[in-house]
Formats: sequence, structure tokens, C-alpha cells
Amino acid sequence: MALSVLILGSSAAAPTLSRNQTAQLVTTERSQFLIDCGEGTQLQLRKYKVRFQQIDHIFISHLHGDHFFGLVGLLSTMHLLGRKTPIHIYGPKELKEVVEVQFKYIGGPGLSYKIIFHGVENRKDAIYEDQEIVVTSFEVKHRIKCFGYKFQERVKPRRINGKRVEFYKVPNYFRSKLKDGADFTTEEGEVISNEVLTDSPYPSYSYAYCADTAYNEGMLPEIKGVDLLYHEATFLEQEKSRAKKTFHSTTVQAGTIAQKAGVKQLIIGHFSNRYNDLNSVLKETKTVFKNTQLAIEGKTFLAGDSKSKK
Amino acid sequence: MALSVLILGSSAAAPTLSRNQTAQLVTTERSQFLIDCGEGTQLQLRKYKVRFQQIDHIFISHLHGDHFFGLVGLLSTMHLLGRKTPIHIYGPKELKEVVEVQFKYIGGPGLSYKIIFHGVENRKDAIYEDQEIVVTSFEVKHRIKCFGYKFQERVKPRRINGKRVEFYKVPNYFRSKLKDGADFTTEEGEVISNEVLTDSPYPSYSYAYCADTAYNEGMLPEIKGVDLLYHEATFLEQEKSRAKKTFHSTTVQAGTIAQKAGVKQLIIGHFSNRYNDLNSVLKETKTVFKNTQLAIEGKTFLAGDSKSKK
Repeated sequence: MALSVLILGSSAAAPTLSRNQTAQLVTTERSQFLIDCGEGTQLQLRKYKVRFQQIDHIFISHLHGDHFFGLVGLLSTMHLLGRKTPIHIYGPKELKEVVEVQFKYIGGPGLSYKIIFHGVENRKDAIYEDQEIVVTSFEVKHRIKCFGYKFQERVKPRRINGKRVEFYKVPNYFRSKLKDGADFTTEEGEVISNEVLTDSPYPSYSYAYCADTAYNEGMLPEIKGVDLLYHEATFLEQEKSRAKKTFHSTTVQAGTIAQKAGVKQLIIGHFSNRYNDLNSVLKETKTVFKNTQLAIEGKTFLAGDSKSKK
Repeated sequence: MALSVLILGSSAAAPTLSRNQTAQLVTTERSQFLIDCGEGTQLQLRKYKVRFQQIDHIFISHLHGDHFFGLVGLLSTMHLLGRKTPIHIYGPKELKEVVEVQFKYIGGPGLSYKIIFHGVENRKDAIYEDQEIVVTSFEVKHRIKCFGYKFQERVKPRRINGKRVEFYKVPNYFRSKLKDGADFTTEEGEVISNEVLTDSPYPSYSYAYCADTAYNEGMLPEIKGVDLLYHEATFLEQEKSRAKKTFHSTTVQAGTIAQKAGVKQLIIGHFSNRYNDLNSVLKETKTVFKNTQLAIEGKTFLAGDSKSKK
């Protein structure tokens, strides 16, 4: 029922012994999606006991190594473990060339499964959708082309009210129609409104991942009102000029975007290695947006699990 | 004075939480050389406190991911840390294409230092040499082109005998000549033989790295009599047919090569993930070649530090 995000890496640029490079696992009821894949992501997936052969869709934000150098290793291990299911990779269109050449000289029949590349553009229509979720991409503001991704749960089915369904003797075969909103007509010809027989669906949640980006109000329409927002906060506010120069964001900028977008909950990450202790990073962001948490490796965030009112 | 090898990874194919993929650091008195670079090698270098900006030469055996997927991450971090010194990379000539494309889309002026690629061939002359060491390559027997590397220390300078040098009043400027074997003529015209003034040099050691290989007596001339040999032992002897099929070696095969080559000490590695406990792997190799040790992450082996007689 939940839309959740497991943090696999929080480090900007180089990995350290305590912080991995960017990668996140988005989980819905039926599926797992990987966003970005820094070096060592496959070990992070093992560490957190993710059954990574069940990941069929990987979203890469941009072609800086700290966001994709772990991809070929993961794909390679999937092959070694005998994967047959195709995998879909979404990202800047040049990613295809970059990945394929890594497997060009491995010899033999190549990988045991197909990789299907989807070049992402800055567009409003879905780049992926299934019965649970719709994923859209949006361009952020970085040194090179870089995409954010939004995961929006579809409207969920209405929930059957067991007692009333029993009372009105609704047959089992009709239950899926009830979930879709149909009224029920009894054998006597009486029409029972769907609202009598069902309760409102569980809420549909949304998660937006803003990748590496400078302060960019241009993306506000894309992330407006999401339940859970990941925004990078590479630097403290005192490094604002450095953030601008490197097309990254400060704590205050991340908080401001969250506040202006009216999101429910903010996760900050992509921390510069200059900050051993992240308390000041968190504290500074909270001065602008209170419901903020740190993207720490191994931590899971639930969209909708917000202390602020919905 | 020593030629040593630090093991950074021992795992065949996929990395695990306890075993990294192949990488080794060869250290001489003045230099550090990296052999192979599986995913996560940069973190292994950090873990074992190697000052990796001092590595100027990297040797890659072949283009299977478990031997080079960590290379671009390491090169990238060297860049992020402001490296200026060029780095030399030796390996199959296709490695240049595979590495360069990873940095093709990073934007800006590119890396802060030059990468100089050296396409390795199966040849007898040195691919690298300096005042301490000569590195040669040799082809091993794998599914794709794969090279082993031999590190041979040059003959070391003779060691000055302090007491006698003082007795014969050899001036300081002449000491380097003594180390090179020159005789000394006193002010009175007496010729003092170099052998009187100096002692024999320390022994010169050698290390051979056999990469991934099937049983291959063809390389015996290249590794004959080395002080320290690394030979893969992916499988126990009971998996001999699997070893043959995948162009890997068994314990007994590794031991047999060591024994036939008359090496002083054998390190085995590249262990299949099917073996949690490596005792049986070690034990089985020792039935053929007694002076064998396991390539465990973090372990350092000294060439010449052999229990067998020299």
C-alpha cells in the first residue's frame, strides 16, 4: 500500500568508508525501482537484503560518475546470477553508448538478458507507467543534462465494506466492479449506491527525486505538493557561492524549494565530504523547512508518513 | 627494500559483503603499482590507508568487469582530489575506448590530469621499467585476451661497509660509485677492491601475477623461479570440468603450476562465491604446493619472505 524510498547512498562526488554514492530504491506494493547507481550500489542492495533481480526499471539522472559508475557492476552481477528478464534503463540518451561499451569485449554470447534503453527527454508525459504508478521526468539545473523523476501513485481502488456487502448479498464476482466504483442492483431491482458498499480508497502518494541541481524554481510545477521530496543539499549556506559555481544547492535552497513547492516531507542528501557531522546540515535546512530528514544509508522513508498535516 | 603485494580483492565474478573483486597493490621502495581494479577498489585503498594519488601506473589484466569496473571510479576520485600527475594504464588495447567513453559526457574541461594508455601485447620486453623494477607482460589462457604481469626487481646496489670505508678514508662523493661496484684508489695510489669496501647487495625479488587463467603450462617460462606467484584458484578440484569450461583453474592446478615453475611462495585467489569457508581451498592446494597462502583482503605478502629455502 505504501510508496517508500530506501536510501542506498548519500555522498556527493567521491565515496567514503561511511557514505556511498547516490542510489535509492523506490518500492511500491508490486515493484522496485532503482534511481541512480553510484559505485558499490550492488553491495548496498545486498547489505539491505534487496532482492535485486526483481528490479526491472532503473532511472539514471545524469552522466556524472557518482550517479552511474555502479550500474555496469550491477548489470553484470544480474547476468552472473542468470537473469533472463529484460531490464529497462531510463536516462540521458548517451547512457546507452556508455553502458554498452563496457560489455563489448566480454566475449561469448554476451549478457543473459536484454537491456532496453529509454532516452529521457524533458517532457510531461509518463516515461513509465503500470497499474500502480506513473513516472515522469523533468529537467533540473546542473552542469550537464540532468533529470529528476517523479513517482505518482494512481488513484487506488475503493475499499469494500465487508459488512454492507454481506448485508446486501453482493456476489463475489461483483467485488472488483465495486472497487472501480460501480453501483450494485439487487435481485429485487434495488440500486445500492457504490458509496454505501465501499469506503474511500487509501490515499495515493507521490515522490519526487530532484537529482543534482542548482537552486531552480523552474521545477516547482513538477514537484508541487508531493508527499515526499528528495532534494540535494550538498553544501551549508556559507558555501553558497561554491554551490552556485558547481550547480549544486545549499541547505537553505533545498528547504526553500520544499517550502515553495508545498511538499509534505523533505529528504536532503548528496552531502559534501567536508561535513563529517551532518547535524548542522539538517539544522540549517530545518530553519526553512521543518519536516526535513537526512538521507542516511539504510534509512527508509514512507511517502505519506508525514508529521505535517495532509 | 621489499617488494610487497597488498590484496585488495579476492572474489571471482560478483563481489560479496565479505569479498571484493580482484585488485592488488604492488609496493616497491619508491613506488606503488595497482594491478586490476574491480568495483569498490577505491574504497579498499582508503580502508587500507593507501595514498592512492601516489599510484602512477595501473595494470589491467583483461576486460571482464570484475577486473576493471572500479577503474573509472578511482580515476574520477583522483580527479576530484585535484590530481595533476599523468597516470599510465596498461592493458588490452580496447581498454582505452572503454575508459574514455565513461568520461565523455562529464562536461567542462574534463579530467584534471592526463591518462596515458599503453596497449599491452604478448611480448618479452619490458612494458614498464624504472631504476628499481622491470615489469613484463605475458598472455595467460582465458576466454578473452588476458595478461599476466611480472615485477622483477633490478640488481640492487652493493651495500657500503661503513667501517672499511672509514678505514680507507673513502670520500663521500665516491660512495655512489662504490655502490655501483667501482674499486677505490687511495691518495697513496693503492687500489682497494670494491669487494673489500662493500657487501653483496640485498637480493632482488620477483612477483608474478597470473590473472584469470585456465591451467596453462605455456606460461611456465615467464614465471619460472619467481619469489612470489599469484595464481587464481577459482574452484576446488571436484569442479575441474567447470574450471576447464570457464577457463579458470582449480586448487590442484594452481599448485601444480607453482610447483612446476619452481616458485618460492604461492598466493591463491579469485575464489568462487560457492566457498564460504576457504580452508578446503587452501588445504587442497597445499597437497600439491606446501608454501601456499590465501589472498585475503588486507593481507600483505613480501616477496622473499618465504619459509621455503631460497
